[in-house]
Amino acid sequence: MAMTEGKALVAQGGGPTAVINQSFVGLVLEARKFSQVTRVYGALRGVRGIIDEELCDLTEATTDNLQGVAETPGSGLLSTRDRPDTKYCHQIFEVCRAHDIRYFFYIGGNDSADTCRIVNEEARKASYELRVIHIPKTIDNDLTETDHCPGYGSAAKFVAQAFSGVNLDNRALAGVYIGVVMGRHAGFLTAASALGRVYSDDGPHLVYVPERAFSKDQFLKDVAAAYKKHGRCIIAASEGIVDKSGKAIAEQFSGGERDSYGNIQLSGTGALGDLLAEWVRKGTGIKRVRTDTLGYMQRSFLGCVSEVDQREAREVGEKAAQYAIWHDLDGSVAIQRVGDYAVRYYLTDLKKVAGKTKTMPASFINRAGNNVTDAFIRYARPLAGTLPRVTRLSAPRVEKVLKK
Amino acid sequence: MAMTEGKALVAQGGGPTAVINQSFVGLVLEARKFSQVTRVYGALRGVRGIIDEELCDLTEATTDNLQGVAETPGSGLLSTRDRPDTKYCHQIFEVCRAHDIRYFFYIGGNDSADTCRIVNEEARKASYELRVIHIPKTIDNDLTETDHCPGYGSAAKFVAQAFSGVNLDNRALAGVYIGVVMGRHAGFLTAASALGRVYSDDGPHLVYVPERAFSKDQFLKDVAAAYKKHGRCIIAASEGIVDKSGKAIAEQFSGGERDSYGNIQLSGTGALGDLLAEWVRKGTGIKRVRTDTLGYMQRSFLGCVSEVDQREAREVGEKAAQYAIWHDLDGSVAIQRVGDYAVRYYLTDLKKVAGKTKTMPASFINRAGNNVTDAFIRYARPLAGTLPRVTRLSAPRVEKVLKK
Repeated sequence: MAMTEGKALVAQGGGPTAVINQSFVGLVLEARKFSQVTRVYGALRGVRGIIDEELCDLTEATTDNLQGVAETPGSGLLSTRDRPDTKYCHQIFEVCRAHDIRYFFYIGGNDSADTCRIVNEEARKASYELRVIHIPKTIDNDLTETDHCPGYGSAAKFVAQAFSGVNLDNRALAGVYIGVVMGRHAGFLTAASALGRVYSDDGPHLVYVPERAFSKDQFLKDVAAAYKKHGRCIIAASEGIVDKSGKAIAEQFSGGERDSYGNIQLSGTGALGDLLAEWVRKGTGIKRVRTDTLGYMQRSFLGCVSEVDQREAREVGEKAAQYAIWHDLDGSVAIQRVGDYAVRYYLTDLKKVAGKTKTMPASFINRAGNNVTDAFIRYARPLAGTLPRVTRLSAPRVEKVLKK
Repeated sequence: MAMTEGKALVAQGGGPTAVINQSFVGLVLEARKFSQVTRVYGALRGVRGIIDEELCDLTEATTDNLQGVAETPGSGLLSTRDRPDTKYCHQIFEVCRAHDIRYFFYIGGNDSADTCRIVNEEARKASYELRVIHIPKTIDNDLTETDHCPGYGSAAKFVAQAFSGVNLDNRALAGVYIGVVMGRHAGFLTAASALGRVYSDDGPHLVYVPERAFSKDQFLKDVAAAYKKHGRCIIAASEGIVDKSGKAIAEQFSGGERDSYGNIQLSGTGALGDLLAEWVRKGTGIKRVRTDTLGYMQRSFLGCVSEVDQREAREVGEKAAQYAIWHDLDGSVAIQRVGDYAVRYYLTDLKKVAGKTKTMPASFINRAGNNVTDAFIRYARPLAGTLPRVTRLSAPRVEKVLKK
């Protein structure tokens, strides 16, 4: 057991998820059990709150308050888009030293893992005892090492239920429907649109992910063929789909706003959906074409949580405290699938996760590049948890009297 | 009791809702109890299925199948956008006569009520015994007579949970967020965005409905003021907002597609949200501006149902069967609020509902025309049912060490 007495500090980074607060609270409640942890601090607004010394004392939060926060989506400690460089990480370390922080936990994606890595090195250089653990979260499911990421399952459930509902709507009032799903480089979340399919002709009938080059011509052929077959067509398209040169289809229509990572803004605009709809209207002659951009609801909608995701998010937070305090280790918490469906947790090297991105394996995408495979369904269905039942009316046809 | 022996026929019209199948199934199960009802038929694709004689025999649907359908959103019998004129209604009547239909039930909005009215007149002219009942449904909540419409509560719950989640997200990563909500003439659904507010600074901070003229200048002033006060701003805007001349703000940016009612297409495009976001970016200088159009999920999302709405939708279907068969009456089923919260059902004249639209009363909109009142919250909260708990972290601040 790590016997270094001192404080623990936790922060949340990047986009919120439906279950990021489970990890946060799992960690806090577990860390509060150890006598060598003198206080558990939280940084407000991620790493920005650390360098600004905007900290709160979670040792004085009530259990009910923490449990309520755990069940609330969004980042309970608030978040930031700051991406620390070495100098920034040095400042983080200086604040840790000033407050006698000995255990630092950062919940986030691959950038957050990279921050953990650099802070860890800064501490080592200064011979300051500081355990640093990265706790994974992202709706994109694009972290390396781990089988899947906490946050993905709930977002996948939202997307599955959205398309499942739209499928029923579109069956009642036929036409073409295009739903644009979050995911800049990885198609996992867009692929989740297929998880709610029950009947063989259920949509989405076409699924486009950033892992495969998107061709306008092929897209229009695909839509026309599906429409001919089903009398309707539902399409799930990732916001990050790219042409064969690797250029984002959305890019030419973006307002050009870039975030601090230099990425073009993809979310928070309906432009890509409108563009695809216009292509279908002009290219196929189909009149009723509708499009939605699923937007921020995918990561924030209240009341749509996968029970599996919720449980695992809680556990990675608890494990983080245990790895640091029982085992005196640094690293990134990862999930290994050990059954159908069961998992175990392990700690992996920060370097293996920091700044790296995982995309969909080829086995999850069909040969034509316009749908997901059964292998994907088997992979993702347990993560999204229980989906509501969908039933079609089953009643015999009545013989015609007038129009025999 | 109506002793006329014959068949019952049910159809669903217009946009699906989360609970329209509850009304359908409530009616079918109740109607199947009466011995004078020889068969219960369903028309596929609304009135279109009647004149095409695309009918199914619901007497041979199993109870489990019907219960499953009741819990499934969308129109189990499929739907249509056809708006019957007198000739079309005459054809409906002819099919009723040919199949010995003596009880006709149509679940839909004010157009469906109008269809019921005309079919009823056609039968009377021909001295054919035909009971006709309109069963209300619409997410817009814009039917006259009834206190509220089945379908509205669940859509309101979706919108409330969407904005509640976005509020948490926006609090973690501050900026301006604009959510565009369905509602061409009535602001009830947009107003529901406020139902999830818990803390005094929770969004939406601004709510714009079609009942009040929308001014770009005032909008930008409102946003700047809210942003100054909260460091962020969430806006709920109805897709149907109009300028002082009554022209839809969305109109100039629509592809110009019109439905069979001559209405410009408002849903199924992100154009209005993108326009408002551009106005805010250019007009206030605020950089982080995001917009979502809530889209078809508002009426179709799987797994977001108000338990109150679900129950009432079931009951209006049951009452429809009872009014027609026990009481031998024609009319439109309506809901009266008789407590806080309790309702009773009654039958009102088809003429009072047919083709008429209700909008928000002045008491539901604040003086400035940019938010809802407490009176609206009291009216709508019971309809949306139970919302998930939202909890903010409550922990004392830590004193700064480095930056005193």
